[in-house]
Amino acid sequence: MSDRSVIPDDLARRIGATMLSREGAGLAWGVELETARVGYARAAMTVRADMLNGHGTAHGGMIFALADSAFAYACNSRNQAAVAQHASISFLTPAREGERMVAEAVERGVAGRSGVYEVTVRVGERVVAVFQGLSRTVGGTVVEL
Amino acid sequence: MSDRSVIPDDLARRIGATMLSREGAGLAWGVELETARVGYARAAMTVRADMLNGHGTAHGGMIFALADSAFAYACNSRNQAAVAQHASISFLTPAREGERMVAEAVERGVAGRSGVYEVTVRVGERVVAVFQGLSRTVGGTVVEL
Amino acid sequence: MSDRSVIPDDLARRIGATMLSREGAGLAWGVELETARVGYARAAMTVRADMLNGHGTAHGGMIFALADSAFAYACNSRNQAAVAQHASISFLTPAREGERMVAEAVERGVAGRSGVYEVTVRVGERVVAVFQGLSRTVGGTVVEL
Amino acid sequence: MSDRSVIPDDLARRIGATMLSREGAGLAWGVELETARVGYARAAMTVRADMLNGHGTAHGGMIFALADSAFAYACNSRNQAAVAQHASISFLTPAREGERMVAEAVERGVAGRSGVYEVTVRVGERVVAVFQGLSRTVGGTVVEL
Repeated sequence: MSDRSVIPDDLARRIGATMLSREGAGLAWGVELETARVGYARAAMTVRADMLNGHGTAHGGMIFALADSAFAYACNSRNQAAVAQHASISFLTPAREGERMVAEAVERGVAGRSGVYEVTVRVGERVVAVFQGLSRTVGGTVVEL
Repeated sequence: MSDRSVIPDDLARRIGATMLSREGAGLAWGVELETARVGYARAAMTVRADMLNGHGTAHGGMIFALADSAFAYACNSRNQAAVAQHASISFLTPAREGERMVAEAVERGVAGRSGVYEVTVRVGERVVAVFQGLSRTVGGTVVEL
Repeated sequence: MSDRSVIPDDLARRIGATMLSREGAGLAWGVELETARVGYARAAMTVRADMLNGHGTAHGGMIFALADSAFAYACNSRNQAAVAQHASISFLTPAREGERMVAEAVERGVAGRSGVYEVTVRVGERVVAVFQGLSRTVGGTVVEL
Repeated sequence: MSDRSVIPDDLARRIGATMLSREGAGLAWGVELETARVGYARAAMTVRADMLNGHGTAHGGMIFALADSAFAYACNSRNQAAVAQHASISFLTPAREGERMVAEAVERGVAGRSGVYEVTVRVGERVVAVFQGLSRTVGGTVVEL
């Protein structure tokens, strides 16, 4: 029986926390889910020595990984299981060891099974990267109500 | 001599109007610059029969073209000549003949010579496409002050 | 009744030609389908005055439109109707009025209903842009056998 | 003094190996540079438990990270230091724990300081993802001759 008393934004937070707890990757990277609501998520990660590229700055793969995580929590926030189909990222400034990167994912459009989310990764006020993700719902839910 | 009395948002509108007036393409397509300010532009275009694909809906190239135009007015809005380096677009819903598409370009981050802009193309409230553009300033201005 | 004698590459060419003949856009732009085979298409277009941006070079929208057309012919080449979900384009060099742009679309991967195609747009040997498209089959065929 | 006897493809391999040896990230992930030549690189990584998402398959961030690494070795292969400006990735099939992902990066176009590279990530013959990267040279070399 579906629980009608569930508040959508509370559910979105529970979904994000559940997803993160099931991941090997996000936990290994120290990803923290700061907040989530319907169509929105904010996640953070501190750059470590084992996340650096040869220039001594955060590897593009780790910046992408954080953005992709925030995107995943946001596009699953209605409890309809969704996967990433495509993602695009523009790198603007480097992030350095010890810096805390914060990724904010915002829904920009949904139609049928597709959704588009924009994620901005910042260190403080500085924009590190801007990401755009296209998701597709695949049937089923993320958490049981 | 630089004219210090120029209001930045007025200049942004003048830049957009000047760019559009110099184009063969935007005029041939009936692109209208609805408004512009620093880091922002909104442009519109009505879908015509010669803009349709084989499905009878707006060709992806025309949806992109409108988004790209709004991106161009926004990324040149500080009167530093800029060109598109990369663009990415997700198509969510079709647009039909006679429908007025409105593209709204918003600056999401700027660093050095690079800028990232997000453009949403809508028909009324419906999101047709979401676009992300990466620009690069190339030296020089768009209009003389 | 399905005609088992159809040669797949012949069918791919017929599909491309049929799609182009149904379009308002491709015909208005003078797009020519040079060739098509399964998972591949090559299309061309000559840059006209009404396709120029304010710099006097081909508008990014028209470069995209040609690439998107070649992508469409390639991703429909198996006679399973497909639409563009996402496309990404990097602009490398400008194209000028009177230059003939040739777009070559090559399939890079297919899984389930999704396909990824890379399109290179050239003028002679010069690379004008590189495009990547993600398609999705939507059920149904393009032409009747 | 520049050593004119350097063979470009040998240098490309040395550059890739040097870049990988300086990274915290690639080493932590177990990235192996399989081969490199001018405008080309192939790198591999085996999916580990700490690289999985909540679905138990390789996190999109790790697939991206491997593709981005191959892209970096390829776009630096002429010993002109280059950085990623933009990257785009389409996910086609999942990769599972213990599977060896191989990313092959191929140059598709270069103009001025920009380059475009396509990277295909496979497990065996299966295409996991297709990636497109846009690089920019930043002055300086990667290794001393």
